[in-house]
Amino acid sequence: MFKIAILGHGVVGSGTTEVFFKNKESIEKKLGGEVDVKYILDIRDFSDLPYGDRFVKDFGVILNDPEVSVAAELIGGLNPAYDFVKALLNAGKSVVTSNKELVAQKGAELLKTARDNGVRFFFEASVGGGIPIIRPLHQCLAANEIHEIAGILNGTTNFILTKMFRDGMGFGEALGLAQERGYAEHDPSDDVDGHDTCRKICILASLAFGKHVYPDGVYTEGIRGITREDVSYCENWSGSSGKGAVKLIGRAVRSGEKAVVMVCPAFVNGSSQLAGVDDVFNAILVRGDATGDVVFYGKGAGKYPTASAVVNDIVSALKNPGSGKRRSLHWEDAPKQSEPEDYGGLTSGFYLRIKGSNPEAAANGAFGDVAFLSGNGRPGDEAAFVTGKMSGGEFGAKLGALRGKAEILGRARVFDDL
Amino acid sequence: MFKIAILGHGVVGSGTTEVFFKNKESIEKKLGGEVDVKYILDIRDFSDLPYGDRFVKDFGVILNDPEVSVAAELIGGLNPAYDFVKALLNAGKSVVTSNKELVAQKGAELLKTARDNGVRFFFEASVGGGIPIIRPLHQCLAANEIHEIAGILNGTTNFILTKMFRDGMGFGEALGLAQERGYAEHDPSDDVDGHDTCRKICILASLAFGKHVYPDGVYTEGIRGITREDVSYCENWSGSSGKGAVKLIGRAVRSGEKAVVMVCPAFVNGSSQLAGVDDVFNAILVRGDATGDVVFYGKGAGKYPTASAVVNDIVSALKNPGSGKRRSLHWEDAPKQSEPEDYGGLTSGFYLRIKGSNPEAAANGAFGDVAFLSGNGRPGDEAAFVTGKMSGGEFGAKLGALRGKAEILGRARVFDDL
Repeated sequence: MFKIAILGHGVVGSGTTEVFFKNKESIEKKLGGEVDVKYILDIRDFSDLPYGDRFVKDFGVILNDPEVSVAAELIGGLNPAYDFVKALLNAGKSVVTSNKELVAQKGAELLKTARDNGVRFFFEASVGGGIPIIRPLHQCLAANEIHEIAGILNGTTNFILTKMFRDGMGFGEALGLAQERGYAEHDPSDDVDGHDTCRKICILASLAFGKHVYPDGVYTEGIRGITREDVSYCENWSGSSGKGAVKLIGRAVRSGEKAVVMVCPAFVNGSSQLAGVDDVFNAILVRGDATGDVVFYGKGAGKYPTASAVVNDIVSALKNPGSGKRRSLHWEDAPKQSEPEDYGGLTSGFYLRIKGSNPEAAANGAFGDVAFLSGNGRPGDEAAFVTGKMSGGEFGAKLGALRGKAEILGRARVFDDL
Repeated sequence: MFKIAILGHGVVGSGTTEVFFKNKESIEKKLGGEVDVKYILDIRDFSDLPYGDRFVKDFGVILNDPEVSVAAELIGGLNPAYDFVKALLNAGKSVVTSNKELVAQKGAELLKTARDNGVRFFFEASVGGGIPIIRPLHQCLAANEIHEIAGILNGTTNFILTKMFRDGMGFGEALGLAQERGYAEHDPSDDVDGHDTCRKICILASLAFGKHVYPDGVYTEGIRGITREDVSYCENWSGSSGKGAVKLIGRAVRSGEKAVVMVCPAFVNGSSQLAGVDDVFNAILVRGDATGDVVFYGKGAGKYPTASAVVNDIVSALKNPGSGKRRSLHWEDAPKQSEPEDYGGLTSGFYLRIKGSNPEAAANGAFGDVAFLSGNGRPGDEAAFVTGKMSGGEFGAKLGALRGKAEILGRARVFDDL
């Protein structure tokens, strides 16, 4: 008889408990043995639930019970999740988690702790909700060098951008609707400022390139600066084919021995599989030297998709309890940077919307030949354009030449190679 | 030191050998030990290749070498692949294969043979080339009931349909181009008549629903009957949103205790993730009760994508040699049907293009209210329309009522719920 513990009974925790009991029979078939939830950790009172007798308030009960072989950490945030997970691994228990903050900040360390103790640390649910991505990516690595990962990793911002694009809403209105529907928090900064996307692309980059990428060292730009006007200019932009879209992209590109990682709003080509990803859906593009482009698409959040990924991880950890000498899910630690890394290695075009007495001349003066975009009802002192490809450093320098001649109203990267 | 054997040195076999040696170092890191290709089986002479000393012509050498723990069967077709794989499994060696015919015809039996011998039988490369689908689908099953799988599973037919749709080519011209580019065989019937798609959806259905689905029992319709006219009417059809597309779809839907499986050309909604899948790309939509819709997209064929999937399977089989009592990849055998199963359980709309003295009246007479489609340069005696939803049986009966009043020029299913 396998015994597991579930830490936290919030949205994902209660969903996990529910999905577990719903699928108990098929899980037991898969395991070739019985399995039960022995404890659920939560400080609140849930004694009237059907499995109310399993609730405990004291983490020590779980930690010190040798019967518990796998625990699911679904509390979220760094504290006390980090202390709990570390202690569980050191006590010889496998841990699965949906906690992207924990994995993005402490992944290398916790993977090493798990390996040192011959147990598992799985986190499929931390990126892409119910989309299988961590394990397929890990398995792809045996026969592929991953060149690049680019994804729409945050459902809330994708919903907002979709509403701006499809229904002509402004950012504030679309954000309000996202909050009304429960997609965005009262304080939406984690989503709209790109931090959530940043954590997820850091996890994917760490796994794909084998070295921990800390969020603090990643250039991160959210979508607060994107206006209805920018979105409408994007509709009149055509990359190599089809109608483009503005998306918040987390991108990690191999550049020699380094990974260049960044988060920013970008114009994406209509022919890209990422352009048609709307509403709260996520999609992750993985480019390997042997597989070519592979895209994983689905609901990136939500109670049941995320719970489903957690339950799958629990089953995997029960089926394959010890990692032994063999290297399973793993990456090396790396120096932590205090400042966002220079993203100069990643060249792309840039979109700019500017205002000035002669905006076209200012644009050409600073950036040379650019492609001006047409816009309905465009004011005479405004110009929107897309530059040729350049590094972030080069762009910064040229932007300097624009100052004094024009005011910058909007900007985004142009990723026409996705 | 692990020793493996590769059976077959054709496109996938040589690709696998190449990808293996290119990634030998990272594979060994993953395994925590050295690994080498001891034998390559091929009747042709490849002695001048860098690894030419590994070639053997006698299968018995591999079968009887206790050092070989994993073999990759990349010969294709049922014979002698089936005999070889069966013998290898019975000799206690794990087998991985890209052979969809073998898995579709003998999957249940070979999975049982593998289990009886405590070894592995993996076939990630048999569906979707380099797209990870078999293993993610299998892992999803722990926490999901799969309702449905629908996919664009054959790159050749998707290339042909894309050329017809995008460049206005006729079927013959597009097929010729596919042959010129090496996407289609000289005898293209396996692809264009839907047999390849049928094998793949059978494999996915068997895995998702737990019972073997034999290709012979599956209603299979290819794309030979699709004309430029049908494609052009589809452009003027709008399902619930966006511009639709004609795709060859393999579909498996749970219906009570049974799976309804079929292969046919269908109109797909513009808002579906499948509509934008063009050229030789494949995509597989999986609908689970917890995950919701998940789509896997990528190159469904080709030397390196397929080889990459084979090498991943080799590494998995080496890492997890025995399945023990636990149920890994597995499905039950089921009675083999000699006739295509009635697909009456699957209701959908139907597209028809007909010719007659009063085609509109004939359409309304047989099908009641239908939605007529407009077409440029449509002859006066032609009508194209989409019916309401009905079962295959109902459609057949109504089609009978049309006979004598109009000639049927084109038909397809209408899958506006994908």
